[in-house]
Amino acid sequence: MDYTVKIENYRKEINEALSGLFTAQEPESLYEPMRYAVNIGGKRIRPILCGIFYRMFKGKKKKVLYPALAVELLHNFTLVHDDIMDDDDLRRNQQTVHVKWDLSTGVLSGDGIVSLAYRVLIKEKFKNSDKIIKVFTDGLLEVCEGQAYDKEFETREDVSEKEYISMINNKTAALLAVPSRIGALCAEAPDSLVVLAEKYGRALGLAFQIQDDLLDIAGDEALFGKTYGSDVSEGKKTYLYILARKLMSEKDLKTFDSIAGNENASRSDLIKVKKLYEKYGIIQKAEDEAAKYIKQAEKIIRSVPAEYDTSELIEFTKWMLKRKY
Amino acid sequence: MDYTVKIENYRKEINEALSGLFTAQEPESLYEPMRYAVNIGGKRIRPILCGIFYRMFKGKKKKVLYPALAVELLHNFTLVHDDIMDDDDLRRNQQTVHVKWDLSTGVLSGDGIVSLAYRVLIKEKFKNSDKIIKVFTDGLLEVCEGQAYDKEFETREDVSEKEYISMINNKTAALLAVPSRIGALCAEAPDSLVVLAEKYGRALGLAFQIQDDLLDIAGDEALFGKTYGSDVSEGKKTYLYILARKLMSEKDLKTFDSIAGNENASRSDLIKVKKLYEKYGIIQKAEDEAAKYIKQAEKIIRSVPAEYDTSELIEFTKWMLKRKY
Repeated sequence: MDYTVKIENYRKEINEALSGLFTAQEPESLYEPMRYAVNIGGKRIRPILCGIFYRMFKGKKKKVLYPALAVELLHNFTLVHDDIMDDDDLRRNQQTVHVKWDLSTGVLSGDGIVSLAYRVLIKEKFKNSDKIIKVFTDGLLEVCEGQAYDKEFETREDVSEKEYISMINNKTAALLAVPSRIGALCAEAPDSLVVLAEKYGRALGLAFQIQDDLLDIAGDEALFGKTYGSDVSEGKKTYLYILARKLMSEKDLKTFDSIAGNENASRSDLIKVKKLYEKYGIIQKAEDEAAKYIKQAEKIIRSVPAEYDTSELIEFTKWMLKRKY
Repeated sequence: MDYTVKIENYRKEINEALSGLFTAQEPESLYEPMRYAVNIGGKRIRPILCGIFYRMFKGKKKKVLYPALAVELLHNFTLVHDDIMDDDDLRRNQQTVHVKWDLSTGVLSGDGIVSLAYRVLIKEKFKNSDKIIKVFTDGLLEVCEGQAYDKEFETREDVSEKEYISMINNKTAALLAVPSRIGALCAEAPDSLVVLAEKYGRALGLAFQIQDDLLDIAGDEALFGKTYGSDVSEGKKTYLYILARKLMSEKDLKTFDSIAGNENASRSDLIKVKKLYEKYGIIQKAEDEAAKYIKQAEKIIRSVPAEYDTSELIEFTKWMLKRKY
């Protein structure tokens, strides 16, 4: 079976289970926006990843539903609050919660989703429940730290590559490491393999985020739903932006600065930025950096003891990171 | 020893322990506002209550620090986000987080505090840890529900007394029931006593909230730090407000409506509202309602089996509810 079909099946199952969490709860003014935010869609890669690790490490049941859903809810919570902090109007072409309703509703429904995440997390007891709750909680705090760094970077022009990688490690990679570890913990995998699951999740997350940065401007926009170069016109401190500040001549930086962060930047302006990125080998550097983490992830998979079947994790990794740039 | 002195000692110990949670963590942009919000003070009644139930039900250790601190953090988290939702500039005469910093910082540091609350909650293992985490999580979601109802009520003029009591049961009483239950659970009290602890916390919370509503306008303002009648000038849907809508004649309601929710209401306007409240026996009704819950709490204490020493809980209850009105 084509892996995309398999992913679609997982997604369907997860979406149904997520919907099932919302029954006739009151007050509507809380649960309606919570439901909206959770059902707004998304790739559901975190719960899928949790399930893959669970099965790979021979979890005894057919699936590991609740902890997987809890991680997805945690992710959804961060999106609702991030959208407030970043003042984003749209997510997946739908109005964000604080725009569709109001600020209070955005704040409160985010809080409601994080409570629900914990409730779902503890619904089923596992031998490693203590560790699972700790991993989940540490992940939540780490994501807050990552978001704080991201906000700090908005007003700084001297962010180093190292700082950037550290930030996306907190903000993005943590939430891929959490489901990987939780899947392994639910399966009662030995500690060494739980560590391995975490390392895989982080490598995957870093590769994924740098690819995402690249896709904004280097990708074939037809393949990608976002507006071309929106990271550039919003002046977002991506990996490419940070390299630009470090590598460009004063003259080119002046051109770059006139476009980056300019909401009215035209398409030809954005292509000018792309050309500048190419001139300084920035696109190549970012591709190399992403490739480094892809290789790391692959190496980690190869280090899994032979008694475990890694074939699905290999397929998943390919599927996750296959996107062209 | 005077119970106020005892409370002061508890408070000091709790404040030191809370400060101890914040060491040299980074990023500053996250931990500094979190520390500020937690150190802004407060009565610390929730962790004190947790300790009282723990000792009363013969917990084996000297104290029950971490779960008690976790509940205080949970409370602080709700304050940070409520201040955003209510657009309040001041809390305990200090700038609120989203005013001192900005909206993003308010949202994010609230999220950070709730993560920290869970981290502290699970720091120490108890026999009943599973139940403790469940009580804590259900409390978090219940408070979100209460806040949602409170926000809904802002735009409704037909809120019934029953609905109001239900709302403060969710929003205020839940966060007194949670530490009571957690204290009992940490002490490994039998289920029937854990239920009793919850009921006590809820009765205390309801009495406390109605007293708080009364203090706004009926209290001797010199005894109370808040601006006289601020609930009235803000048009807050308190127990008194709800009774006013129900009981006043059309004419008096017209006068009432010209003052309630009028930010520029003068002192004599506010006294006019107080006189209207008195005319309709609203102050008395609210006092009776508070007294009902105080009696409930006292009855619950008397129902505690004789093998447990309830003397401190009695003292605490008196101290909590002694405030004049």
